[in-house]
Amino acid sequence: MTVTRMPSTTLAPTGSTRAGSGYERYFRGALDQLHGERRYRVFADIERISGRFPTAKWRQPDGKTTEITVWCSNDYLGMGQHKEVVAAMTETAARCGVGAGGTRNIAGNNSPLVDLERELADLHGKEAGLVFTSGYVSNQAGISTIAKLIPDCLILSDAFNHNSMIEGVRHSGCAKKIFRHNDLQHLEELLQEAGDRPKLIVFESVYSMDGDVAPISRICDLADRYGAMTYLDEVHAVGLYGPRGGGIAERDGVMHRVDVIEGTLAKGFGCVGGYITASAAICDAVRSFAPGFIFTTALPPAVAAAARASVRYLKRSSAEREAHQSQAAATKAALAAAGLPILETETHIVPVMVGDAELCKAAADHLLEHHGIYIQPINYPTVPRGTERLRITPSPFHDAAHIERLAAALSETWEALDLPRAGTVFVEAAE
Amino acid sequence: MTVTRMPSTTLAPTGSTRAGSGYERYFRGALDQLHGERRYRVFADIERISGRFPTAKWRQPDGKTTEITVWCSNDYLGMGQHKEVVAAMTETAARCGVGAGGTRNIAGNNSPLVDLERELADLHGKEAGLVFTSGYVSNQAGISTIAKLIPDCLILSDAFNHNSMIEGVRHSGCAKKIFRHNDLQHLEELLQEAGDRPKLIVFESVYSMDGDVAPISRICDLADRYGAMTYLDEVHAVGLYGPRGGGIAERDGVMHRVDVIEGTLAKGFGCVGGYITASAAICDAVRSFAPGFIFTTALPPAVAAAARASVRYLKRSSAEREAHQSQAAATKAALAAAGLPILETETHIVPVMVGDAELCKAAADHLLEHHGIYIQPINYPTVPRGTERLRITPSPFHDAAHIERLAAALSETWEALDLPRAGTVFVEAAE
Repeated sequence: MTVTRMPSTTLAPTGSTRAGSGYERYFRGALDQLHGERRYRVFADIERISGRFPTAKWRQPDGKTTEITVWCSNDYLGMGQHKEVVAAMTETAARCGVGAGGTRNIAGNNSPLVDLERELADLHGKEAGLVFTSGYVSNQAGISTIAKLIPDCLILSDAFNHNSMIEGVRHSGCAKKIFRHNDLQHLEELLQEAGDRPKLIVFESVYSMDGDVAPISRICDLADRYGAMTYLDEVHAVGLYGPRGGGIAERDGVMHRVDVIEGTLAKGFGCVGGYITASAAICDAVRSFAPGFIFTTALPPAVAAAARASVRYLKRSSAEREAHQSQAAATKAALAAAGLPILETETHIVPVMVGDAELCKAAADHLLEHHGIYIQPINYPTVPRGTERLRITPSPFHDAAHIERLAAALSETWEALDLPRAGTVFVEAAE
Repeated sequence: MTVTRMPSTTLAPTGSTRAGSGYERYFRGALDQLHGERRYRVFADIERISGRFPTAKWRQPDGKTTEITVWCSNDYLGMGQHKEVVAAMTETAARCGVGAGGTRNIAGNNSPLVDLERELADLHGKEAGLVFTSGYVSNQAGISTIAKLIPDCLILSDAFNHNSMIEGVRHSGCAKKIFRHNDLQHLEELLQEAGDRPKLIVFESVYSMDGDVAPISRICDLADRYGAMTYLDEVHAVGLYGPRGGGIAERDGVMHRVDVIEGTLAKGFGCVGGYITASAAICDAVRSFAPGFIFTTALPPAVAAAARASVRYLKRSSAEREAHQSQAAATKAALAAAGLPILETETHIVPVMVGDAELCKAAADHLLEHHGIYIQPINYPTVPRGTERLRITPSPFHDAAHIERLAAALSETWEALDLPRAGTVFVEAAE
């Protein structure tokens, strides 16, 4: 059996294309280039099964379905299937219907969404919250709008920031300086050089591909010393860290020292959408000036209600967070014992290094085909070339048996494909 | 009773702000400016009631709720409460949980979403479809990615294009020329001037604020004559026009002549999300190169299933489209008979002109307070200054009694506030 996953842009039987427009060649050429570089992405067609996470159905191109174990979901705590969360969605859909019916300004400002924003403001100890259709849009619209409203703003941006933050920085049109990843000395040099002009530091708490953590408190020290404003992305931490799931800044007791905390409803909270929390004036200004917020349909009431149920639940229950950490630790220990080249992390993210795009995809295909284990290969541009990897995300629902099977399957795959073992040095290729 | 709607960024009781950061003044200053220009937006807090559209609950700042009639929803056909659509959402949420659990590439590519894309490709007679988290993102990411992949592309953009299309054009970094709204002669001049270089014409079918329609067939004639590619936004037409709800291009029999048709799942289809349909190569290239697609969580399976149910239903049923047109015509006739200054349109959109931001808001407040009728004021920047209006969107569920009450309420409001009558000339203020 050969794994040939189809791209999701499937042919429609009645499809037709304008003949002779002559533009097709540009798009085909761009795709050929991706194939040539072995970084054409194919999406596995997965159907989740509520109540049985991490088991899911994999629908193959011939329509046949197989049960698989998902080891790469960003629904880190399995909250997407939590019964209170699912019930909030189904009950609200039955009561309010599906769509919001308009933008926030025009008929779409639904009560469950207003309540969700209040819940998020409370989570982070801020005056206000503002919800977007995605975390991507919250960063893009949030950073660009905030920076644009500050005259002569200089943005200081961590080198490993997510694409959505880079787009926000770029979109602002402001001057920017990139500081080396988590490098306080470099950040301080840049702050010093900048002098008195307004400065905005944008950074993440948990970096999703390497699983390392920013020194938030010390970045806030520098912000205080040099008079900078701070914008923190807690996308891979909200729900997961802190006594009430407020993220790394809550865990470290420094939420009140950060001006803007951005998060997602799609990962730890298991739903969809993104948000910022900040002072009332900041949220109100973004609400009033960000085109990506103003001109887009509001999140459906049923989605808002589900997200709120998830946030509320994780404020009062820490059992999921504890199980998450213990299963992540057990996974790391099992893979390290098997001699696999895992990247040491202080978080729940477990990268297993491969260092080559084609081998990385081959390893993922082998795991799915021979072991029913789904881990999507992570290649450039998500990570630098030369550092291709399988990124494993244990959850509270990955039990000891799952972990044992994963370690055995990876060992067999590493043997079969002759992949690099623990101790190998992976070097980023020059761009 | 005075209407004082609160902004949605509500204070959290435990809120705190970083003291002394000094940046608050920039955001407060920007908001003061909006207040000064009388264009600070307040969002009405609405809860939809499934099965009773257009009746909804309005939650006032003191927590008291009142039943109101919504006359400005973009859920044009009320499909957000259709029983097949709601059932698809609740059944899929119960089966698959709430969130998709990841990006399309990493664990989020759910089967209902793949099926929805096939459904949309079929709707527009294209080879492929690609779904985004919103119509805004589909235009921003779609236009910018397509234009970037065409070497030396010149974009020709209608002057009245939606903000999301303008952002897509801007984001592409390509050269652009703006042609006067629906002006074929001007478009042809610009095409001639451009010579042999690749050209992309981007335009809408139904322009949402004036309710007028593009001459799609004749724009395609020009595209053929001058070798241009075409990108058509059918956001305010899909579900609503054409024998199967394919939009104005389907109604006019020209879908096959347009290279890319973009649409939304949030308006005629009553859900949330956006999409493009085009050749397999175009959709695959956007899928592979658009950061706003790649780095964002997939639409939840329950939302995809609801949207697909809506698309499928409206392919086979035209009763909603017919009732929609008849109720829009009846509304226009009733308002015209009352001497109100409606903008003549050939579509379902009924703009009633006011021509002043403060009066427009006062009229909306008066309608809500005295008549329980909710129509959000439309001010700059959504429309040019001097053309402020109430934008009314009749649906199949606005019956004769609703229309009669609307006409009476508007007449009383126009009388009470001494607003301009039919025959008034509204002039766009210079920027």
